[in-house]
Amino acid sequence: MKRRQFVGGLAAAATLSACAKNDTDCNVGAAASQETFEWSCVTSWPPKFPGLGMAPENLATRVEKASAGRLKIKVYGAGELVPAFEVFDAVSRGTVEMGHDASYYHKGKVDAAQFFAAIPFGMTNLELNGWLYYGGGMALWRELYAPFGLVPFPTGNTGVQMGGWFNKEINTADDLKGLKMRIPGLGGEVLRRAGGTPVTLPGSEIFTALQTGSIDATEWVGPYNDASFGLHKAARYYYYPGWQEPGPGLETIINADAWNSLPADLQEIVSTTCQAITTDMAAEYTNGNAMSLQQLKNDPNVELRRFPTAVIDLLRSIAQDVVEELMAADPAAAKIGKAYFEYLDVVAANSRIAEQAYLSTR
Amino acid sequence: MKRRQFVGGLAAAATLSACAKNDTDCNVGAAASQETFEWSCVTSWPPKFPGLGMAPENLATRVEKASAGRLKIKVYGAGELVPAFEVFDAVSRGTVEMGHDASYYHKGKVDAAQFFAAIPFGMTNLELNGWLYYGGGMALWRELYAPFGLVPFPTGNTGVQMGGWFNKEINTADDLKGLKMRIPGLGGEVLRRAGGTPVTLPGSEIFTALQTGSIDATEWVGPYNDASFGLHKAARYYYYPGWQEPGPGLETIINADAWNSLPADLQEIVSTTCQAITTDMAAEYTNGNAMSLQQLKNDPNVELRRFPTAVIDLLRSIAQDVVEELMAADPAAAKIGKAYFEYLDVVAANSRIAEQAYLSTR
Repeated sequence: MKRRQFVGGLAAAATLSACAKNDTDCNVGAAASQETFEWSCVTSWPPKFPGLGMAPENLATRVEKASAGRLKIKVYGAGELVPAFEVFDAVSRGTVEMGHDASYYHKGKVDAAQFFAAIPFGMTNLELNGWLYYGGGMALWRELYAPFGLVPFPTGNTGVQMGGWFNKEINTADDLKGLKMRIPGLGGEVLRRAGGTPVTLPGSEIFTALQTGSIDATEWVGPYNDASFGLHKAARYYYYPGWQEPGPGLETIINADAWNSLPADLQEIVSTTCQAITTDMAAEYTNGNAMSLQQLKNDPNVELRRFPTAVIDLLRSIAQDVVEELMAADPAAAKIGKAYFEYLDVVAANSRIAEQAYLSTR
Repeated sequence: MKRRQFVGGLAAAATLSACAKNDTDCNVGAAASQETFEWSCVTSWPPKFPGLGMAPENLATRVEKASAGRLKIKVYGAGELVPAFEVFDAVSRGTVEMGHDASYYHKGKVDAAQFFAAIPFGMTNLELNGWLYYGGGMALWRELYAPFGLVPFPTGNTGVQMGGWFNKEINTADDLKGLKMRIPGLGGEVLRRAGGTPVTLPGSEIFTALQTGSIDATEWVGPYNDASFGLHKAARYYYYPGWQEPGPGLETIINADAWNSLPADLQEIVSTTCQAITTDMAAEYTNGNAMSLQQLKNDPNVELRRFPTAVIDLLRSIAQDVVEELMAADPAAAKIGKAYFEYLDVVAANSRIAEQAYLSTR
C-alpha cells in the first residue's frame, strides 16, 4: 500500500499546483487537466453510412463523454470539408486534426500503407489485429506515417467482404475476360491481369453504373452495405467469398502536433476508444451482414454463388505476382510486406485448426 | 455552430460552479468531476496469467491512465482475496466493486449465464459480439444479472479453443467410452453422455494429473495457454477443434451500487475500456496461439490431430440434447437460449459464406 499512497501524494501535489491557490471546491487527489479541445475529423464515408461512417460518429460521441466534454470531435462526411480521398493530406497538413478512412486509399502516395488495410488472400480481421497489436505491425505502421506527421490507430474492420454482384455468370476463368467490374486497388489489378477491365467508381455511382450496364459487376462491401445501396436490384448473381478484401482494417489518423498537444489522459481515451470501435464495428457488420443476407436469400431475383475453385486458384496466383511487384518497387513496401507475409504464414496455420476447422463442424 | 456553443456554455457554467471562486488556473470549459475512487477487482485467473489474467491488469492500467488517476483498480488473482469461483458472490455482496471471470462459472447459481460465455457448437467470438452489441444479447444479460446487483460488460474472448491433450487416440466414438478427461461445464456433460468420465480440476492441478495418468486427457484453452502449462510434456495427441468452447467471452462484473456511484465520464471510460480489451485479448490470443502452435508442430513428441467426423457428429448431437435440457429446466435459460439459437441460425449462415468460405481459399 505504501507505494500507491506515495503515487497518490504526487498526483495530489500536481493538482495543487494546477489549482494554484487550492480553492476548497477544486478537489485535491486527481490530476485531470481541465484544458479543452475542439477537433475536426474528416472521413472517406457518406455521413453516418452504416458501419464505416458510424465508426467515427461513435468514436466522437464516446470520446466526448469519456472526457466529460474536454475533447469534442466534429465529424465530416466525404466531401463536406475535403473530398473522400484527401483525408490523408488534410490531416497531414494540419488542416484538420483527425481523419477516418482506409489506408489502401493512400496507394500511389504511400504504397506500403495497403498492408495495414487489406491484401488479396491476406489476413482476416482477427489475424490483422494479432499482427498489429502483438506481432510488431503497429511499430511498422507508426514508422511509415511519421514522415507525414501522422499517428495511426486501427479503428474498425468490416470483416470478410463479398466477391460482389455480377450480371454475368462466372463459371470458368475465361468468364473474367472482358468483364467490366468496379473493383479498386490491388484486387482491380488482379482482375486486369486475368483479362478483365477494372473500373474505379465512388460508392454513390455504383448502383446506376450496374443498372445501366455500363459495368458488368461490382464489389462493394458485404450484405449489410450492399443491400443499403440496393445492388440486389441491379444484378442477379451474388458471389462469395471476398478474396480481394478478407478483413480490411480501417484507420484513424491524427496530426502529430494535435496528438502531442493532448494530455496523457486524453491520449489514452482516444487510443482506447479507437480499439473499442474495432470490436464495435465488427459486431455491427456481423449483425448487419447476417440480417441482410437472410433477406437477400429470400429474394427470388438473387442467386448466391460460390466462386469456382479454378477461378479462385487463378486469382490467388495472380495476386501473389501483384503483391510481389508492389514489394519490389518500393523499399518500405518490401520491408512491411516481408513482415506481413512471414506473419501470415504462421497465423494462417493457426486459423486452419481454429476458426476454419470449428466452422466446418457446424 | 450555435447549438454547440450553447452546450459549451452550459459545461463552462457547471465548471464555474464546481470551482466556486473561479481560480484562474482552474480552467473553465470542462465538467470532469475530480472525485477519486479506489476499487478492487477479484478474478478467476492466476495473477497476470497470459491472456485471461492480463485482461483485468490491462483494464486497470488503462482506466487509471484514461481517468488521470481518478479511478484506481487493484487486481487480485484467484485466491488472493476470494477463491477463483467466488468472484460472482463477492461482487454481488459488495465485498469488492469489480470482478473478471467467465459467466459459465455461475452454472448452478445462474444457469442461463452460460449463454454469454460459450455453448458447445455455439457462437464464435465475432458472432457472440454481434449478438451482444447489436442483436439484443446485452439487454438479456443485464436483465439476468440485475437481481444480483451486478452490471455485466463483455471483456475479452479467447477465440476458438483446442479439443485438448490426449494420451489415448480418438479414432471412433467408442474411444470416448471410459475416457477420464478434465472438461468442465456443458462440454463435460456431453462427454459423460458419450460414455466418458468428466473431471473438474483447477488449472494448477492439470499438468500433474495428466502426467501421472490420473486423467487420460484434458482440455484447457489453446496453444498459447496450454504450452505455458507444459501440457505437451504430459500428453502426445493434440486434438482440434475445440467444439466445447468455440469462442468463450469473458466478463467484467461491477457491483451496481459502485457502478451508480461513478460519474458519467468514468462510466464511459470503464465500458469503453472493457470493449477495447475484447479486441486486445483476441489479438493476444491470435498471436500467442499462432506462435505456440508453430513451436508445438516442431516438437517430435506432439501429434496434431483432427477429431474424426463421426466423433464430432456424435458430440454435436448430444450437445443439442444437453442444451435443450438446460433450457427446459430454467425459465431464464429458456428465454435466453431461444434468443441465442435464433440468432445463431442467422449469423452462422453468414459465417459460412464469409469467414469459412474465405479461409478455405488460402
